Amino acid sequence: MGQTLADLPLRDDLRGEEPYGAPQLDVPVVLNVNENPYPPSEEVVADIATAVAEAARTLNRYPEREALELRKDLAAYLGHDLTAAQVWAANGSNEVMLQILLAFGGPGRTALSFAPTYSMYPEYARDSCTTWVTGRRAEDFTLDVTHALEQIAAHQPSVVLLASPNNPTGTALPLDVVERICEAAPGIVVVDEAYGEFRRDGTPSALTLLPRYPRLVVSRTMSKAFAFAGGRLGYLAADAAIVDALRIVRLPYHLSAVTQAVARIALKHADALLARVHELRGRRDETVEWLRGQGHQVADSDANFVLFGTFPDRHTVWQGLLDRGVLIRETGPDGWLRVSIGTAQEMAAFRAALQEVLAQ
Amino acid sequence: MGQTLADLPLRDDLRGEEPYGAPQLDVPVVLNVNENPYPPSEEVVADIATAVAEAARTLNRYPEREALELRKDLAAYLGHDLTAAQVWAANGSNEVMLQILLAFGGPGRTALSFAPTYSMYPEYARDSCTTWVTGRRAEDFTLDVTHALEQIAAHQPSVVLLASPNNPTGTALPLDVVERICEAAPGIVVVDEAYGEFRRDGTPSALTLLPRYPRLVVSRTMSKAFAFAGGRLGYLAADAAIVDALRIVRLPYHLSAVTQAVARIALKHADALLARVHELRGRRDETVEWLRGQGHQVADSDANFVLFGTFPDRHTVWQGLLDRGVLIRETGPDGWLRVSIGTAQEMAAFRAALQEVLAQ
Repeated sequence: MGQTLADLPLRDDLRGEEPYGAPQLDVPVVLNVNENPYPPSEEVVADIATAVAEAARTLNRYPEREALELRKDLAAYLGHDLTAAQVWAANGSNEVMLQILLAFGGPGRTALSFAPTYSMYPEYARDSCTTWVTGRRAEDFTLDVTHALEQIAAHQPSVVLLASPNNPTGTALPLDVVERICEAAPGIVVVDEAYGEFRRDGTPSALTLLPRYPRLVVSRTMSKAFAFAGGRLGYLAADAAIVDALRIVRLPYHLSAVTQAVARIALKHADALLARVHELRGRRDETVEWLRGQGHQVADSDANFVLFGTFPDRHTVWQGLLDRGVLIRETGPDGWLRVSIGTAQEMAAFRAALQEVLAQ
Repeated sequence: MGQTLADLPLRDDLRGEEPYGAPQLDVPVVLNVNENPYPPSEEVVADIATAVAEAARTLNRYPEREALELRKDLAAYLGHDLTAAQVWAANGSNEVMLQILLAFGGPGRTALSFAPTYSMYPEYARDSCTTWVTGRRAEDFTLDVTHALEQIAAHQPSVVLLASPNNPTGTALPLDVVERICEAAPGIVVVDEAYGEFRRDGTPSALTLLPRYPRLVVSRTMSKAFAFAGGRLGYLAADAAIVDALRIVRLPYHLSAVTQAVARIALKHADALLARVHELRGRRDETVEWLRGQGHQVADSDANFVLFGTFPDRHTVWQGLLDRGVLIRETGPDGWLRVSIGTAQEMAAFRAALQEVLAQ
């Protein structure tokens, strides 16, 4: 019919927008979307198959709408005396975030974050018709509290989004920074701990602050530490009233019976899956050290990726790596590149390829 | 902490709203949410377990973001020479609908439907900050074209939502009505065929109109005919440019690898699953006839449920049935009740319970 997007009565602020997502390329070493390189063990696979077969026997029925058993398991995993009523789950933390913006953002309201940060945040704001404002992070990607408080005072944001560890920089926030923001913010403060399990020793989680700040939300995902990116399960911990607010805007039966069953199996195997996290943290620290040894600037990382640079022409470096079968991510401030932490073999391939590219 | 929903900075138009959903009660005969009463066969269950085990082996990786293989299978199932580029899928048709409203609705725009109709529609409009307007259906729940065209002229809706067969009335739309609305509507026209497979012989699908109306969307779900309510898979067919618009507002990786795999297995078994649809259609027609024989008013139904009435106090009838272990739905216009079509045994239980309740 020859109709194009431009012919359609698309919402005005969506014109010219592109679908979000890194290129899906088929290369030997994939280190571009911060996946966990370790697939589930055959034991976990078998448990998943059994649980799904069980769930499949009643697939003609709608799933349990509140996903209460799953939320109980997530609360038990998080600890901190959390209960199911204080935990909410959805299809990936991006659905959790959109629900937060739908409930607490909207026309005439503002969401605030501090760049460079996760590039999906402005999309949640856009989709929920929330005004998007960004402050800046310091040169070393930490948060300057004075600047942050000025931005809060100036914009009175309904939602403040703080990634900790931050993507794509890997920077975690000290708790006193989160506390000062919680005290100043007029609305909801979200600490996005998607990479929380990869924190270095001594880096605390904002979960410890929940009892003191009733408008604080700590979001998590099973995509990274649980090696569950394909299963799509994001969640959060917050005051039960915040969970009740999200229940208003969630689509009914948003979590399939299969998603609930598979996520519960992954949680049952948390110990084995998290052992791999320990290994990845070690390799992350080695990667930081190696890159610094090569003379690169490297951001401190509490995540499963490392931001390094700076390159006068980062695209050429990215392309050179790709030509050698190593896919990393061209993201973050000008001149920087981000590499996810893979297996020992994958990181060796990355190091060799990078040396080759830069030797040219 | 004692914080309540009222203390939170919730979006103003969400204040006082309740989470959507019918009561989840544990009773012997569940005929309240239009589920298919037939669970998957053990053959389908085994195929699902095998496919999910396969998908689980790479669950550490994000799912294929475009779900292209699934969309190909859905296109093949729909026929009408549709291709994957003209098909879109999401977690339930409610996510499909929200995406439509996010892309084409929004502040300052209007969505129009005709009541009584599906009670989630105003929630999609509310969540996407789209103004919600309803015209009326005729006494017999059909659509009065003159009235519909007047409403379109008056409100210039960005999105028109037409359920066919309509929920909760079961009423299908003649194609000439859809055509006249497509010709008059300035924006997107969605024909929601969630119950499309249950149409009586001779009732056409709006899929046949797609080549002629580039802004027409026909939505479907696997929840009903495919007995896949627990799997959460909704989809639509439309011009490829409309699909491109939805790709802008979809959350990346919205369909899990497991959801994609399980839905493809269900589609592979379409013939067996649809044989049950034939049986349910027959039982639906019998139920209509029986209810009419009992002296009730019954709406013509092209769906897997029947709307009947009218009762001066429908709640008492509903409660009386529930007391006898039969859960139906108190929905639709005053005085009417809706019963889903279950197994032969379940419908016998419904008939016996209704006679008992009304004999009192």
